[in-house]
Amino acid sequence: MAEISANKARTIIRKAMAKGEEMEFKPLSVVVLDAGGHVKAFERADGASPGRFAIAHGKAYGSIMLGIAGTAQMARAEQQAYFMAAANGVFGGNVIPVPGGVLIRDKRGAVIGAVGVTGDTSDNDLTAALAGIEAAGLVGEG
Amino acid sequence: MAEISANKARTIIRKAMAKGEEMEFKPLSVVVLDAGGHVKAFERADGASPGRFAIAHGKAYGSIMLGIAGTAQMARAEQQAYFMAAANGVFGGNVIPVPGGVLIRDKRGAVIGAVGVTGDTSDNDLTAALAGIEAAGLVGEG
Amino acid sequence: MAEISANKARTIIRKAMAKGEEMEFKPLSVVVLDAGGHVKAFERADGASPGRFAIAHGKAYGSIMLGIAGTAQMARAEQQAYFMAAANGVFGGNVIPVPGGVLIRDKRGAVIGAVGVTGDTSDNDLTAALAGIEAAGLVGEG
Amino acid sequence: MAEISANKARTIIRKAMAKGEEMEFKPLSVVVLDAGGHVKAFERADGASPGRFAIAHGKAYGSIMLGIAGTAQMARAEQQAYFMAAANGVFGGNVIPVPGGVLIRDKRGAVIGAVGVTGDTSDNDLTAALAGIEAAGLVGEG
Repeated sequence: MAEISANKARTIIRKAMAKGEEMEFKPLSVVVLDAGGHVKAFERADGASPGRFAIAHGKAYGSIMLGIAGTAQMARAEQQAYFMAAANGVFGGNVIPVPGGVLIRDKRGAVIGAVGVTGDTSDNDLTAALAGIEAAGLVGEG
Repeated sequence: MAEISANKARTIIRKAMAKGEEMEFKPLSVVVLDAGGHVKAFERADGASPGRFAIAHGKAYGSIMLGIAGTAQMARAEQQAYFMAAANGVFGGNVIPVPGGVLIRDKRGAVIGAVGVTGDTSDNDLTAALAGIEAAGLVGEG
Repeated sequence: MAEISANKARTIIRKAMAKGEEMEFKPLSVVVLDAGGHVKAFERADGASPGRFAIAHGKAYGSIMLGIAGTAQMARAEQQAYFMAAANGVFGGNVIPVPGGVLIRDKRGAVIGAVGVTGDTSDNDLTAALAGIEAAGLVGEG
Repeated sequence: MAEISANKARTIIRKAMAKGEEMEFKPLSVVVLDAGGHVKAFERADGASPGRFAIAHGKAYGSIMLGIAGTAQMARAEQQAYFMAAANGVFGGNVIPVPGGVLIRDKRGAVIGAVGVTGDTSDNDLTAALAGIEAAGLVGEG
């Protein structure tokens, strides 16, 4: 499998949203990007603030572009803030280096896309993203 | 109704996609924006080219920002190309002035969002957008 | 008088809006810039599309930066589209070269600011702008 | 009430300015944005520096986009500077994360707009913003 399908993307979004509701998180926004970092699907729950596409996208986009998920990006940002600032320079300011950006891998370990979730704490965003990816039969690396 | 809901947005996307399949259009991409031009939901069908989010978004975003749908924007661009070029300057290059950008109005005529469809000819894109909006019980202005 | 005051700016906006209502124009948006091209005051009437600040601003900003009002900018754009495109390059894409951008002059002819009006046809926008400037006891050059 | 009206916006600006004069603050600038982050009204008092529109706008815009008012944004910036820097990347550098950016809520708690005030200390800016919003019969969250 080389690329995330629209079907899988839809499942990820639906199940990540359902996890958020079940856990009583604040309204979430969930984006799915393909292996090239291009938007495949997105949804913003009612009640979420208007700028949430950009935040969700930034989490997933940075994960794809750097090949490093949000948790590891945050660790890098805390150790070496200027590196993440510089990375943002070359990626047009489109990287949000915190948990909730998750790489999706197929069974052989190849990256086939990424998920970005935003709306609650970064850790809760990550929980919802992983639940969505797992429900779609895929493996997430957060 | 002041704002397009996630539920309505999902219906619009599903039904616009279904219309495209029924009519044997090329793979479509469909975005739904709220009344402030912010992304509510998006989906790109399998087989569509990677840049389709930006095209769909540009059709819907220009419709919201200018309060003028894609067909009328195209007429203006044909009469006064420098005006649409200048409009794109102030809107960060985010306006695609062709059919397929459709305003969504509620029953009292207020704009509650916009749809952008891309993938086939502009006229076919418009057909799919209108079908989706109608299926959601709303009125489209293309 | 070297600079447009907040009082005068408020009068211009109120009277331009009143002119629009009297003439049954579509809902207008009116910006007043100072002699340096910086925003002094703005108002967007209920029912105007969300992107109207950028359009109004672009009309007034181009007038100040070039020292040429909207009507003359449009003539230049029609004769030499590449010139206005290039001007937009150096001014960051912030110039909208159509009527409705009006220079404000004091009694000695010095530019003390500019008005930008948008919402109806460019000619009607200009009519409202001139009415507002005249009501404030100033001279407009459209 | 789904959207801030021009009338309410004008009241907020007038009363925030009056509060500043009463308290002998430095000359203020006040912007009102709608729920989508688009400029509804603005005024810059005589004597304020020319760049104040951008500062006022950045305070209000960040509040809307993130759904978080200025005081809470400042706390986040102090704990996690790289996060607010990254947020500014995805929002085009348009976020000013300090007090004086205030969310406006209607009686049911829905965000209907935001106010941004600048000119004096951030805390005094916030005081003026809240006074303006209260005078308009609305609830501010600073």
